[in-house]
Amino acid sequence: LKPVDLRHASRLVNHGPTVLVTSRHGDRRNVMAAAWSMPVEFLPPRIAVVIDKHTATAELVAASGVLGLCVPGRGIADFSYTVGSTSMRDVPDKFGRFGIGFDDSPTLGVPLVHGCAGWMECRVIPEAHTQSAYDTWFVEVIAAWADERVFSAGHWSFRDDNTALHTLHHIGAGLFGTPGVQVQGRRLG
Amino acid sequence: LKPVDLRHASRLVNHGPTVLVTSRHGDRRNVMAAAWSMPVEFLPPRIAVVIDKHTATAELVAASGVLGLCVPGRGIADFSYTVGSTSMRDVPDKFGRFGIGFDDSPTLGVPLVHGCAGWMECRVIPEAHTQSAYDTWFVEVIAAWADERVFSAGHWSFRDDNTALHTLHHIGAGLFGTPGVQVQGRRLG
Repeated sequence: LKPVDLRHASRLVNHGPTVLVTSRHGDRRNVMAAAWSMPVEFLPPRIAVVIDKHTATAELVAASGVLGLCVPGRGIADFSYTVGSTSMRDVPDKFGRFGIGFDDSPTLGVPLVHGCAGWMECRVIPEAHTQSAYDTWFVEVIAAWADERVFSAGHWSFRDDNTALHTLHHIGAGLFGTPGVQVQGRRLG
Repeated sequence: LKPVDLRHASRLVNHGPTVLVTSRHGDRRNVMAAAWSMPVEFLPPRIAVVIDKHTATAELVAASGVLGLCVPGRGIADFSYTVGSTSMRDVPDKFGRFGIGFDDSPTLGVPLVHGCAGWMECRVIPEAHTQSAYDTWFVEVIAAWADERVFSAGHWSFRDDNTALHTLHHIGAGLFGTPGVQVQGRRLG
């Protein structure tokens, strides 16, 4: 868990991975998966993420004004899929029930989930209209970290020896693509 | 180029691929790459995409109220990288200059780029604040198509025999991950 320079934070999600949205209000903590997120600004790093207004996560985030965005690795694909299809209303403690640990983030106290490749703690930028009309929340990243085995000096390195930390890209029904096969685009003249 | 049912359109970008944003106003046509897009609604299918306000694309899209979103395949990785780092102001005809064809979409007349795996024609939903504050444009997909060799009946099928149509996920500096390696998440009890 190594700090990521804020100017590189957007790179954690630039390539479109599924993220885990974590939340905390008082003693209540939750985690859900979200396939729909994207950076919108490099610096300050800002991210848009879709959180359905009917979810427990939306309720906690609205109450606290903060959330965590964690980038799960392939090693926790089952956990990631499962927390994307269960509600806190049925499973009050998804961490305990599905057997994954976390630490509270240092400034905002949102869960940073073990087994992830990257983590961000974020403050909500109040945007009532887009929250209501599109379930789209804009957040500002105030701190970021990565597992240096797969992301260091601002760059991802997806290799055969770190596949458990390869990011997950949700194709559908729990099937995830991972970026293990890569291609280098060349600049045409 | 087979029609995609609108209720499945979000699946074309659910897993976070880089897209080509195409635009047309009068006789002026353009294409740029965008790593930052996401669905925000299943039906009607709506997508958010970040288009820097200083680009020629933003100018054309603002003037016409329409755009195309094309999902490039690995076979045009060089084109995709190149149109993401050149401006129409320097290269007025990127299609001709970089040697890729297109067809105008049937209803809105936006370019559908050859060599892509999926295509959508979209109308802009006017949202002046998010366009200004976050360069974030919300659009509604009015028609979608896919190359059935890689996407049919609402599902992607990334296989060894269709790698040229595998989607591109921009890691940075022209390096793209592709979803050739997959993992099936299982539901935890």
